[in-house]
Amino acid sequence: MPDTFTIGLVQMRCSADKEANLAKAEAAIAAAARQGAQVVCLPELFLGPYFCQKEDAALFDLAEPIPGPSADRLAAAAKANDVVVVGSLFEKRMPGVYHNTATVHDATGQFLGMYRKMHIPDDPLYFEKYYFTPGDLGFKVFSTSRAKVGTLVCWDQWYPEAARLTALQGAEVIFYPTAIGWHPKEKAEYGEAQHSAWETSMRGHAIANGTYVAAANRIGHELPPDGDRAGGLEFWGASFVSDPFGRMVRRASHDREEVLVVTCDRKLMEDVRRNWPFFRDRRIDAYQNIVKRVAD
Amino acid sequence: MPDTFTIGLVQMRCSADKEANLAKAEAAIAAAARQGAQVVCLPELFLGPYFCQKEDAALFDLAEPIPGPSADRLAAAAKANDVVVVGSLFEKRMPGVYHNTATVHDATGQFLGMYRKMHIPDDPLYFEKYYFTPGDLGFKVFSTSRAKVGTLVCWDQWYPEAARLTALQGAEVIFYPTAIGWHPKEKAEYGEAQHSAWETSMRGHAIANGTYVAAANRIGHELPPDGDRAGGLEFWGASFVSDPFGRMVRRASHDREEVLVVTCDRKLMEDVRRNWPFFRDRRIDAYQNIVKRVAD
Repeated sequence: MPDTFTIGLVQMRCSADKEANLAKAEAAIAAAARQGAQVVCLPELFLGPYFCQKEDAALFDLAEPIPGPSADRLAAAAKANDVVVVGSLFEKRMPGVYHNTATVHDATGQFLGMYRKMHIPDDPLYFEKYYFTPGDLGFKVFSTSRAKVGTLVCWDQWYPEAARLTALQGAEVIFYPTAIGWHPKEKAEYGEAQHSAWETSMRGHAIANGTYVAAANRIGHELPPDGDRAGGLEFWGASFVSDPFGRMVRRASHDREEVLVVTCDRKLMEDVRRNWPFFRDRRIDAYQNIVKRVAD
Repeated sequence: MPDTFTIGLVQMRCSADKEANLAKAEAAIAAAARQGAQVVCLPELFLGPYFCQKEDAALFDLAEPIPGPSADRLAAAAKANDVVVVGSLFEKRMPGVYHNTATVHDATGQFLGMYRKMHIPDDPLYFEKYYFTPGDLGFKVFSTSRAKVGTLVCWDQWYPEAARLTALQGAEVIFYPTAIGWHPKEKAEYGEAQHSAWETSMRGHAIANGTYVAAANRIGHELPPDGDRAGGLEFWGASFVSDPFGRMVRRASHDREEVLVVTCDRKLMEDVRRNWPFFRDRRIDAYQNIVKRVAD
């Protein structure tokens, strides 16, 4: 393996026009590749507005099989640009079983597999438990031609277990396709703390695991079902890459479409883990209660 | 339980005079109590210089049984000031078995129990594996008269598993008696990133677990065995309290003795956990590999 690999994060606004979103993602993948990216990650469910703001059975029509039409487009974009692509699709697995799924296509276009979001949120305007069956593939790392790629999705970013179980499989970078934003009415009071907690949580995973962490988020104010312009979700962008020491390497804006390209240093990972050898000292004899709901 | 409880962190310099360190700790406990603290935490191994800078069999003489003379002094300080005291002692358990142990005395002076440091570091000048047998009591929470107190020690702060297993037992605050500092020769290049990673890691635990986190560190430049003034360890202080949202409530200086007193809000914990209900969605069916060294 070379000493470095280069990753790209796509931060984009997602309109109601699926074809336009796909075309925008394809263009961003190409742009990232031109800037040297070898592995490119898209935001969560980038094919359209974040539809989980309401529960509507008709919206299951948005789901596609994987492989399927949109996955095939991602495969083609990977091949055309000679980059690994981490995508995020609403997967129709069978009638009544749908997942929030990250896809991984190698730079040849070959489908390497998928990760089905394991932790499913359900908060006001994030009604994901209605749409997404919790993943049953466990935590995943893909040995792509460019890097060992871990995949987690959005709500997973709050779970140290998810990052650890991905890192234990050898992830050199953990990608988080993301759709997180502010409730406009809460933003003034809690917005800064919410964004800071989100970033801090993932920088913590980078530190604990000595690995790169990269989150690709969407931007834009998407209105709620009732159209109230004071409601809905204001996706906060701020896609970023943390190095294995928890240092912020690059952070995008809160409100502009951007492609972040960051070169990751395998020697730095080795160096960080030699100097702070956390994996050496894990008390694997004493962690059994992690699988309990509460240890009361 | 009342809506709040108040904690105190003692940040101190530790000299070669054990009695002076004990007296200083007693005075700091009293000062914290006067400022309203109900639970006071001391830095790691505050009875003397951080002796793990060298491996010397004679230094096992520093260890004491628990209960024992110094633990009794902590009990008396707890009772005299009507505060819970979290101490940190070099425990002699039997000849050849020594631990790095956190003690918990209730405000009556009653000994509630101890936590033996589970993760033991071993880096240049932090030769702890020579002195400390890894803990065999597991992760602990103590139901004191003032709060449910979790105890971890220093190197544990890099392990999300430790914080999680403590929080799963209902900890309202996790205390980390600490002795961490810079190698003076590394400080210019890495010092800021090291301190930031340390703080970020623990803020991450606060966020992931919706609990208060409090670290009490020592200060002072302690010389190495060869007396080289350019060597040794410069303990970085910066004791702090994070709230359950990961917000920095109070942070001490890098170089002054201080007592930090912070009121913790049980309603905030409840509120944070209602709004970001991470515990609800843990995939306890899928975490089994946490007990593997590497999942390769």
